[in-house]
Amino acid sequence: MSIVNRLNQKASLSALGRVLASASGVLPGASFTKTAAAGQSFAGYSTSTSNTSIRPDETSHPIDNSSKGPTGVIDIPKRYLMGPGPANSYERILLAQAQPLLGHLHPPMLKIMDEIQEGLRYVFQTKSKYTLAVSGTGHAGMEAAIANLVEPGETVVVGNKGIWGERVADMADRFGANVVELKKEAGKTFSYDELKEAVETHKPAVLFLCQGESSTGVQQSLAGLGDLCEKNGTLLLVDTVCSLGGVPIFADDWKIDAIYSGAQKCLSAPPGSAPLFLSERALQKLKSRKTKVRSYYLDMNLVGDYWGWYNSRSYHHTGMVSTWYGLREALAIVAEEGLEAMWKRHMACHEQLWEGLSAMGCKPFVQDPKDRLATVNTIVLPEGTDAMALIKNAMDTFNVEISGGLGPTFGKVIRIGLMGANAQPATVALVLDAVKDGLKKQGKL
Amino acid sequence: MSIVNRLNQKASLSALGRVLASASGVLPGASFTKTAAAGQSFAGYSTSTSNTSIRPDETSHPIDNSSKGPTGVIDIPKRYLMGPGPANSYERILLAQAQPLLGHLHPPMLKIMDEIQEGLRYVFQTKSKYTLAVSGTGHAGMEAAIANLVEPGETVVVGNKGIWGERVADMADRFGANVVELKKEAGKTFSYDELKEAVETHKPAVLFLCQGESSTGVQQSLAGLGDLCEKNGTLLLVDTVCSLGGVPIFADDWKIDAIYSGAQKCLSAPPGSAPLFLSERALQKLKSRKTKVRSYYLDMNLVGDYWGWYNSRSYHHTGMVSTWYGLREALAIVAEEGLEAMWKRHMACHEQLWEGLSAMGCKPFVQDPKDRLATVNTIVLPEGTDAMALIKNAMDTFNVEISGGLGPTFGKVIRIGLMGANAQPATVALVLDAVKDGLKKQGKL
Repeated sequence: MSIVNRLNQKASLSALGRVLASASGVLPGASFTKTAAAGQSFAGYSTSTSNTSIRPDETSHPIDNSSKGPTGVIDIPKRYLMGPGPANSYERILLAQAQPLLGHLHPPMLKIMDEIQEGLRYVFQTKSKYTLAVSGTGHAGMEAAIANLVEPGETVVVGNKGIWGERVADMADRFGANVVELKKEAGKTFSYDELKEAVETHKPAVLFLCQGESSTGVQQSLAGLGDLCEKNGTLLLVDTVCSLGGVPIFADDWKIDAIYSGAQKCLSAPPGSAPLFLSERALQKLKSRKTKVRSYYLDMNLVGDYWGWYNSRSYHHTGMVSTWYGLREALAIVAEEGLEAMWKRHMACHEQLWEGLSAMGCKPFVQDPKDRLATVNTIVLPEGTDAMALIKNAMDTFNVEISGGLGPTFGKVIRIGLMGANAQPATVALVLDAVKDGLKKQGKL
Repeated sequence: MSIVNRLNQKASLSALGRVLASASGVLPGASFTKTAAAGQSFAGYSTSTSNTSIRPDETSHPIDNSSKGPTGVIDIPKRYLMGPGPANSYERILLAQAQPLLGHLHPPMLKIMDEIQEGLRYVFQTKSKYTLAVSGTGHAGMEAAIANLVEPGETVVVGNKGIWGERVADMADRFGANVVELKKEAGKTFSYDELKEAVETHKPAVLFLCQGESSTGVQQSLAGLGDLCEKNGTLLLVDTVCSLGGVPIFADDWKIDAIYSGAQKCLSAPPGSAPLFLSERALQKLKSRKTKVRSYYLDMNLVGDYWGWYNSRSYHHTGMVSTWYGLREALAIVAEEGLEAMWKRHMACHEQLWEGLSAMGCKPFVQDPKDRLATVNTIVLPEGTDAMALIKNAMDTFNVEISGGLGPTFGKVIRIGLMGANAQPATVALVLDAVKDGLKKQGKL
């Protein structure tokens, strides 16, 4: 037995635990190669020199061992992720992801899925049965919402005030929708009257808006839109990827029909699961579709059945076991802190950030104060500042990630995210120190 | 500051580390509520009693705190996952998932993605540039393969000899393909001649086969199919979800065009990433499509660009940071053990299992010995055995998961998986003990 095999076996036995050794009576040191060498070929394969399960009609080849991929144990540098996301996770959440695996239909796993649904009801502020975590990152949630709520040929009005509206328009087009794009210049939001006119004119199946547009740093008002959409037979779909848990939302009271989000922003879980909410009206739409959802992986008729939406539990795909442990733990932290405290914390950090930035001569990219998003801040540096040099200095000197602009803000701003575990006064102070140091080094302070 | 907030802040500070406190000069105990109370409302919001970032035109509501979701710290029972998957992970892989997060475009993250691609080249045995991990579970890999390689109206010949062929047929139908299903009774595989006739008759764009059909426990021969497909202008797509790393495959030598897999089987990583391989010929097909891929999340023109397939790196979606740490570590373990050793280990465990099972009067469901899959075994119990009672006893007494049948084998077999970290002699001995105990308790031994 090679050293590597022995190491692996040791790792395995360590993971599988003491119960194994005592229950099975097999000594930890027992060599499986002995068993293999016995050549008891019950399975009917000829005991070849290779003794792998290559079929007798298949041609074997010398294994190419010239490049095998990663070597050594993974080693990750610690960084403060204060761009637009992912944000850092609490240690408790990361450790949850190191818990042993469960089967995707084991009762303790189903209990965790129930807890996730209940925790999501709380952050969405809904009593709807229809919450779950899509098995993918925020974009999977986005695609799930569009794929399930829109049929080919139907009209979608997409509020496009940054990169997310663009992406939703692209997705809706791929799913065969008739896309009507409402454009808004970077740094501004849509007024109720503009949206009212669009909805009444096009009577769309879906109106899409992004609550927290991280590419421009604006927060879209959702006031009155639920009633407007209901009256016009439209479903109101809202992107909350970088706002959920950081900014108020009341899914039921505001009559929103569908919300998706990402786990890796204000909820502080690692990326990989996308919270999703559907209203009763959205579910009715799903159930009365004339065509199949154009995705199997994201078909909420099937995924919902795995999550117990329809009072049973069917296998659909193997759930994201470790990732869901992390999301469950993140939602437990939300429950313990409480939503109002979280919203206040994000707002307080936003104010702390701008107190500091304004003292350094930085200006908000978003002109109208009430349009400014608390969680992702777009910042215009003092004239003549080399933004890329400042960003590089923050990483090199402070291990702090600050981000440049994206899409319509590319080259115009820096972006600082204050989300979840990073919306803390100490972290805000650190990122301010990093900006200050960058400005000083460029003679701007 | 409430106890909960203080706990969270403590957790956060612990996670963010000592550097933070020393670099920023902020005391760990400093209260952010004090900052908030100062009411320096730079951002322009009125300092309301709530002081959240609700917009002035939006209506606030009392937060519904009646049910907040999960409480307490997550606690997972340890189990031996010896069904058809997920299998247990090595502890080293689980711990990798607890490493601090990186941004999805940070150079150390891109290096991990490069390592994953290189490690996948090794397990696929290919020199193709086009390997990556799809951001989802095995089904996402399946959907990605179909969505990218098939255009609406094109023909797909689906080898359906269990549940996976059925699912691929369903997916291909959703993507607008003309699906030709070849059916085969449960427990048997397709002969080369049957496949040759189908390919020559239908000249399909894609021929789909599942190498390791976990619902029936068979291993499909891939001999000669690469040449056959090439000659007929067909792409050969192979599902290796429960076979990759456990059973020989030579992507280049066998002229396979596309392979997808799952991380949670023989590779021992947790579920959440789906290894994918495309040949040069498959990539040409992707690049010469007349229609857009009917998915944004899975469009390999875009995802491939995030992974560096086209010599640049573009943001597409936020990658599965922690999950990829785990996959990287799993591939490092593969590289250290070596593929041939892994294949032998799986075969040796398969033989050890059947030696034990046959001594207890259990019989293989798969009649032809060379069709038997080493990694997932379908087992006919002695007549009159209550399979569900045996499965329940294994879990209750040994913490061992054994699975029932699925799809065409439902109610007919039990299934035992010997994959990755669980393909060890001690683990096989344990599952044999569990079967023996179950049979004894039912008077069958």
